[in-house]
Amino acid sequence: MTAPGKTRGRFISLEGGEGAGKSTQLRALAAALRARGLDVVETREPGGSEGAEAIRALLLTGGADRWSPRAEALLFAAARADHVEKTIRPALERGAWVLSDRFLDSSRAYQGMGALTDADILALHRIGSDGFLPDRTLFLTLPEEEASARARSRDGDAADRIGGRDRDFHLAVSTAFHRFAAQEPTRFLAVDASGEAGAVTARLIEAVRDLLP
Amino acid sequence: MTAPGKTRGRFISLEGGEGAGKSTQLRALAAALRARGLDVVETREPGGSEGAEAIRALLLTGGADRWSPRAEALLFAAARADHVEKTIRPALERGAWVLSDRFLDSSRAYQGMGALTDADILALHRIGSDGFLPDRTLFLTLPEEEASARARSRDGDAADRIGGRDRDFHLAVSTAFHRFAAQEPTRFLAVDASGEAGAVTARLIEAVRDLLP
Repeated sequence: MTAPGKTRGRFISLEGGEGAGKSTQLRALAAALRARGLDVVETREPGGSEGAEAIRALLLTGGADRWSPRAEALLFAAARADHVEKTIRPALERGAWVLSDRFLDSSRAYQGMGALTDADILALHRIGSDGFLPDRTLFLTLPEEEASARARSRDGDAADRIGGRDRDFHLAVSTAFHRFAAQEPTRFLAVDASGEAGAVTARLIEAVRDLLP
Repeated sequence: MTAPGKTRGRFISLEGGEGAGKSTQLRALAAALRARGLDVVETREPGGSEGAEAIRALLLTGGADRWSPRAEALLFAAARADHVEKTIRPALERGAWVLSDRFLDSSRAYQGMGALTDADILALHRIGSDGFLPDRTLFLTLPEEEASARARSRDGDAADRIGGRDRDFHLAVSTAFHRFAAQEPTRFLAVDASGEAGAVTARLIEAVRDLLP
């Protein structure tokens, strides 16, 4: 229940491939929203609640074949159910804005190929989280060369079970994100993440301006 | 692939409430099958593979409200997907019999009430494990007074997140198991677990006799 006199907050997810600058831009967008007087919660997936962080530890350690794609998708959905219930929904109810570094659409883009269909991923999210969706998803896009260059410059960070994959994989992810933008043009907005960081942040603020109180 | 000249093994799950003697009877049934020259793998849920045991540790520790019913159902399905892929299927392919202390029907009986429907639990199992089912499920039944007496006598064991629940809960579980027996009379067989242990084991062997080579 939203407290009397309070407006429910907004839930914004940031999506994009490795090197698109999601984490940096999430912090900058949070700062810009706080400067407008908003209560802002910064969170991430997988993780963002105590239970979900424990599941994250299972997901990101071990060899590439520790989890089958099916088990992995179920673990992501379990972590997301905990994240939504324990962190996101309570924050929205008290009127906060919640910014999440990745959410459902990452599962759709990363796990919804091969063994699992997009319908399977959406079914897991319906069962786990009642199909709860962001008010807006900001998809940070970069020309491929710029994304590769940025990813290379932070190679150490990216070498976990999720990041350490090949170029075809990352292209397939990018194609999936562009498809979501075409399918849900109001919720899922592509935002140009190239160029100077401050200019990118300004574009992100423009992309949520209609949601501001 | 089953090796040439080898018959695929059989997968048997044991189900029942607390105190029905599943663990004891599983060991006795395994010994009886081994005495007939069969290769037998004893396993359990949640758990039964390295990944699934790690998920088990998440499921069984913490307070009763650590996981929502939805997150819990997803974690059980993830553990089951790993258990099927890494332990059960490889054993069956090499011709072994696999006996599991609990499997899908426990999720249906324990989680498939309240927030989740039986259809939800079956959907998770389809996505996680292609809907893989036991060749036979042996449901150990006890008159309620006998089950309560046995459960009381091992109270220390049962006081984890799953066992430590009230009488109405355990009655609802038992009702669900009886419904499965009515729905799938070939796969899901109720077996009287009262009386002397050796007599119960003899009934279990009778209940799988048609599957023996």
